[in-house]
Amino acid sequence: MNTYGAKLRFTSFGESHGVGVGCVVDGMPSGVRFDESIIKQKLQKRAGGQNKYQTPRKEEDEIIILSGVFEGYTTGTPIAVLVYNQNQKSKDYSDIKDIFRPAHADFSYFAKYGIRDYRGGGRSSARESVARVIAGAIASMLLDELDISVKSVLCGVGEVDMVGEIDFEYQSGIFAPNKASEELFKKVLDETIAAKDSVGARVLTYASGVMAGLGEVLYDKLDARIASAFMGLNAVKAVEIGNGVYASHIKGSQNNDEFVLKNGKIGTSTNNHGGILGGISTGEDIIIKTHFKPTPSIFLEQNTLDINGVSKAMAIKGRHDPCVGVRGGVVLEAMLSFILADFVLLNASSNIKNIKKIYF
Amino acid sequence: MNTYGAKLRFTSFGESHGVGVGCVVDGMPSGVRFDESIIKQKLQKRAGGQNKYQTPRKEEDEIIILSGVFEGYTTGTPIAVLVYNQNQKSKDYSDIKDIFRPAHADFSYFAKYGIRDYRGGGRSSARESVARVIAGAIASMLLDELDISVKSVLCGVGEVDMVGEIDFEYQSGIFAPNKASEELFKKVLDETIAAKDSVGARVLTYASGVMAGLGEVLYDKLDARIASAFMGLNAVKAVEIGNGVYASHIKGSQNNDEFVLKNGKIGTSTNNHGGILGGISTGEDIIIKTHFKPTPSIFLEQNTLDINGVSKAMAIKGRHDPCVGVRGGVVLEAMLSFILADFVLLNASSNIKNIKKIYF
Amino acid sequence: MNTYGAKLRFTSFGESHGVGVGCVVDGMPSGVRFDESIIKQKLQKRAGGQNKYQTPRKEEDEIIILSGVFEGYTTGTPIAVLVYNQNQKSKDYSDIKDIFRPAHADFSYFAKYGIRDYRGGGRSSARESVARVIAGAIASMLLDELDISVKSVLCGVGEVDMVGEIDFEYQSGIFAPNKASEELFKKVLDETIAAKDSVGARVLTYASGVMAGLGEVLYDKLDARIASAFMGLNAVKAVEIGNGVYASHIKGSQNNDEFVLKNGKIGTSTNNHGGILGGISTGEDIIIKTHFKPTPSIFLEQNTLDINGVSKAMAIKGRHDPCVGVRGGVVLEAMLSFILADFVLLNASSNIKNIKKIYF
Amino acid sequence: MNTYGAKLRFTSFGESHGVGVGCVVDGMPSGVRFDESIIKQKLQKRAGGQNKYQTPRKEEDEIIILSGVFEGYTTGTPIAVLVYNQNQKSKDYSDIKDIFRPAHADFSYFAKYGIRDYRGGGRSSARESVARVIAGAIASMLLDELDISVKSVLCGVGEVDMVGEIDFEYQSGIFAPNKASEELFKKVLDETIAAKDSVGARVLTYASGVMAGLGEVLYDKLDARIASAFMGLNAVKAVEIGNGVYASHIKGSQNNDEFVLKNGKIGTSTNNHGGILGGISTGEDIIIKTHFKPTPSIFLEQNTLDINGVSKAMAIKGRHDPCVGVRGGVVLEAMLSFILADFVLLNASSNIKNIKKIYF
Repeated sequence: MNTYGAKLRFTSFGESHGVGVGCVVDGMPSGVRFDESIIKQKLQKRAGGQNKYQTPRKEEDEIIILSGVFEGYTTGTPIAVLVYNQNQKSKDYSDIKDIFRPAHADFSYFAKYGIRDYRGGGRSSARESVARVIAGAIASMLLDELDISVKSVLCGVGEVDMVGEIDFEYQSGIFAPNKASEELFKKVLDETIAAKDSVGARVLTYASGVMAGLGEVLYDKLDARIASAFMGLNAVKAVEIGNGVYASHIKGSQNNDEFVLKNGKIGTSTNNHGGILGGISTGEDIIIKTHFKPTPSIFLEQNTLDINGVSKAMAIKGRHDPCVGVRGGVVLEAMLSFILADFVLLNASSNIKNIKKIYF
Repeated sequence: MNTYGAKLRFTSFGESHGVGVGCVVDGMPSGVRFDESIIKQKLQKRAGGQNKYQTPRKEEDEIIILSGVFEGYTTGTPIAVLVYNQNQKSKDYSDIKDIFRPAHADFSYFAKYGIRDYRGGGRSSARESVARVIAGAIASMLLDELDISVKSVLCGVGEVDMVGEIDFEYQSGIFAPNKASEELFKKVLDETIAAKDSVGARVLTYASGVMAGLGEVLYDKLDARIASAFMGLNAVKAVEIGNGVYASHIKGSQNNDEFVLKNGKIGTSTNNHGGILGGISTGEDIIIKTHFKPTPSIFLEQNTLDINGVSKAMAIKGRHDPCVGVRGGVVLEAMLSFILADFVLLNASSNIKNIKKIYF
Repeated sequence: MNTYGAKLRFTSFGESHGVGVGCVVDGMPSGVRFDESIIKQKLQKRAGGQNKYQTPRKEEDEIIILSGVFEGYTTGTPIAVLVYNQNQKSKDYSDIKDIFRPAHADFSYFAKYGIRDYRGGGRSSARESVARVIAGAIASMLLDELDISVKSVLCGVGEVDMVGEIDFEYQSGIFAPNKASEELFKKVLDETIAAKDSVGARVLTYASGVMAGLGEVLYDKLDARIASAFMGLNAVKAVEIGNGVYASHIKGSQNNDEFVLKNGKIGTSTNNHGGILGGISTGEDIIIKTHFKPTPSIFLEQNTLDINGVSKAMAIKGRHDPCVGVRGGVVLEAMLSFILADFVLLNASSNIKNIKKIYF
Repeated sequence: MNTYGAKLRFTSFGESHGVGVGCVVDGMPSGVRFDESIIKQKLQKRAGGQNKYQTPRKEEDEIIILSGVFEGYTTGTPIAVLVYNQNQKSKDYSDIKDIFRPAHADFSYFAKYGIRDYRGGGRSSARESVARVIAGAIASMLLDELDISVKSVLCGVGEVDMVGEIDFEYQSGIFAPNKASEELFKKVLDETIAAKDSVGARVLTYASGVMAGLGEVLYDKLDARIASAFMGLNAVKAVEIGNGVYASHIKGSQNNDEFVLKNGKIGTSTNNHGGILGGISTGEDIIIKTHFKPTPSIFLEQNTLDINGVSKAMAIKGRHDPCVGVRGGVVLEAMLSFILADFVLLNASSNIKNIKKIYF
């Protein structure tokens, strides 16, 4: 269950404050150009740390490629990547050792495993997303060969939504879609930090260049898989595709997209469906909106219980992001890249015509 | 990919207008009391048909239990259930044979398989949910042994949200949560029918009595699995858990639930998290909100393309629900029942203490 | 666990004396020519019944194709096939109801499930192989498109081995490889029947036309999968590939096959390796030898226990084959066909060159 | 496909001469006492190297536990173990770079992936069994909690079979079952070395203390899984369970085992079935015989082709075992341990009685 994917899979391991974290990517076709720097860029993007809105910890995520690559290309065998943790023994946990932090996974993990791995959340920590980002970066090398691209932007923080158009080229330390939105969002973040509180956020994720036909009916549909991967990310509480929540408020005549020819290819005149119909890609852009709850860790005092059921008041110390959604988009991008690469491979055998192209 | 689940699995088959639909439920423990009438009740609930808000077709879904049950109990071997289609050859499809109906799966299936199974949508039809309902009903027999219950109500239609409190005992032909809401919803539905249009809807699904500890980290979390199963249902475009969309708009101090003792058991004072933290159940009620888009089939004329890319105007004839979300809750219930039963089994080996209870 | 295969899968169901048996084949590419008569021929071959060496029961295995086929071609959706049992309620089991028949699965199933399904072995009966034969026949339709063929012959009964060369065209009621061997085998079978006993047997299975490159490293190798499928068949106790047992008795210089050009293609001068090296097909014929134990059911009196642990003497009555291996080859053929079809699909995404052939 | 197992799984990675090899063990229950020294002992046993019959290479297999263990116990999260390769850059491969070594996987890997990873066989090297041995050692920690034990001995080399009784306590550098057999085997090995050749061998593997009821019908039977795992090991060409090959030569009256009471428990008077009936364990010892072909690498000159299809004569230089079966038993033990641990977990949910023991 620490393995994700069907034909392209990754298995991850590692705890927040253990020896290291990493993943094994399996099922990658041989012959894909392998560029280690793509992984580094993505990890750097995830690490953030250049401003006050992200945990100021210095995670030097140096990667070690252990296997699966030979003379600059994938070999078809498992690609294992390891990142040693830099801070594994540096901390004193005595203040939270026996306490269930509110809105964290401490209690539910304890209920399941009978063990309280108090070292920064252990396996439930967001540190695990390092593995997802690595796996997604490797998957994106396959997508590059097929001209598929994936992008995310922050589209809302707390009660404030983005303004203006998305500029995917805009460079923002908080992944905002443009300058005006960035300023609005920073204002909310500043207020949140001042209040020793945290705040929720929303992220838009797009995929372009996706061929029609991806998605495996009936129980591994493209939208189902996206919903699973996105909701499975720490702090995500809602996922919308295309019109999403809005679709449940309108009429069929408003929501239905007409099929039209676009440059000789079948597409739709509008994209209310978000690139997926019947769980299968249509060739239109895939559009997803993801809702992150506020970071559970806040500096304000909260009441909770310890593992013996005794009432405790606590205030979380140390470093943490005021808004987990800010960096969340990097991980969503990674997961969507991985999903698309997996479905590209799965779809290869959907049709006898494809099989004959390969073997004859 | 037509198999769903990990330890408890069902494999479904059948097209809308083929010979029959059905499923094979595999992994059910032996010794579970098997009550065929539960399946019949659920199928009847799904069939609807008692009022103008649901397709007036008469689906006499007679079930045949083919295997896996002996002397009133499950045997541990696969339980196969078959429903013959009553209407498999009754229709003339010549008007839609070559046309991609807007917002349906016709085009994306064609892009994938190179085949246009024009008989009422074929495999992509909502007829498939018969298999889900059967599988869910069988899973609920296992949940009954463990006092876990699952329920759904319609909580919004178009722009109108429910009013008042949910009364799970209230008998409503449209699964409304109470009389006042039912009247509001029927008004929207009546207007929609009069306008030859369709409308979106929202459904709340609850699970009670769920033990803490269900969910498999990291890539088969309980919330991830729910999101996948619900988003994978025809017409669903958004899924929220607990505070959901609202969680992305508020502060941590508002969203965090305090841990407290309730009847000597650890629980939370509020349930903003919707019964799941870190992807694992907390023992609080599981709460999900699901958004259905409007039924794609409408009586209004629409523009589209045929399989040769030629422009066509079309108006869908025949029977269809004006609001696919009305009956959707029955299928969501089924899927949640199945998921919970699966996780109950998966969790059995999470802890060496459990294993020793079994073998010593 | 009643689902077999990775990309091409079948899920089977049904007990010996339940309502029916059948399977759902999932993952078949769309567009494969579907010929129902192939299934019928294979089931007839399995049924035997034309001579005294096989159970004289009249199993009229009429098949019902429930789904997945449209206008003579596969659609890419699940192909469900059902066979109703003809004899489900005809028998009195009172004499063996509580008894564990020696060398049967009665005791081990009871130990696992706590249930004694005494109706002819229930799920553990060889009746289940009907599902395997159907699935294999469907898989062979895909192999036909790729010119791969699979065949089995009986190569030994008891202490007697076949003589002469294999003639795959030879028509034998007991699947003997030629007339001389058939007479030798029949003599052993006659003696066995006269002695109210049963006897073991050996079967050779061949696949020709298999492209090099099939098999998924490291834990789904082609030889591993064959060993699993063959050993998993009722009564099989040993599986050999290529030189098999003999390979453990000789020197490397005797066992190694030289690579040579054959009609411009790379192959080997001899085929001691049986068509598989490193778990991947080499393009040479795949050769497997399978050992069946004697039919557990014999007319001689045997001592055993009942479910309460009380000693009982018993002699099995009714019909049964004196040599289960005679008909076993038909099922081995089916399983090998299914495996090869699965690996053909799995291999489609091994190499970026294949992926580009499909999408560009 | 580089992941093995169902409920307990390991994913392995690494090539013979890459950076390192290792595995991630997932699905281990929490609370199992973790003893790193068990892994070290098993790896040392596998490494051999103390005598002339095994590759004299000095593999200092130092293990790094990267995750999944906390304060001496498993946590329920993935246990990742890494071994860096010591000799990754030390060799000149120019003589075999483009050549397909006879009876090795060079050609079939090339046919599949289009890549010739000439560094000592790459992923197809026996070096990979380090990962299997680690995973098996971790699984054996779970078996220890349940008093299940697994052992292997060498029972035949070339044409010579063991003599006398097995003494599992006998310390032998070549895993012989007793002193007399050891001397016989060494004589064959000495002759083989002198002839610059290699030789095949046979290994017996036993499991004791296995509870009745393990094995998942119908397509993940215990015997099927064993056959798969054993046949999937490099150089294995045949697998027998219980009477194995002999069972196909005898009568039912000779092969059937009677059920009898033993210390109040149901067992069998003889163990021709090898501890498995109907694919499910009976509680009797599990007995498997495995046949290894001769080491493909020999010092004698052989003819073969290069990747361009040009004929080449070659003699393999460097180090290699004259008889790969000698050390093979250590890996078979590991695989059987892993399989049994997996089935112990899978079986936990076979019966509603087990489930109730856990949750009530």
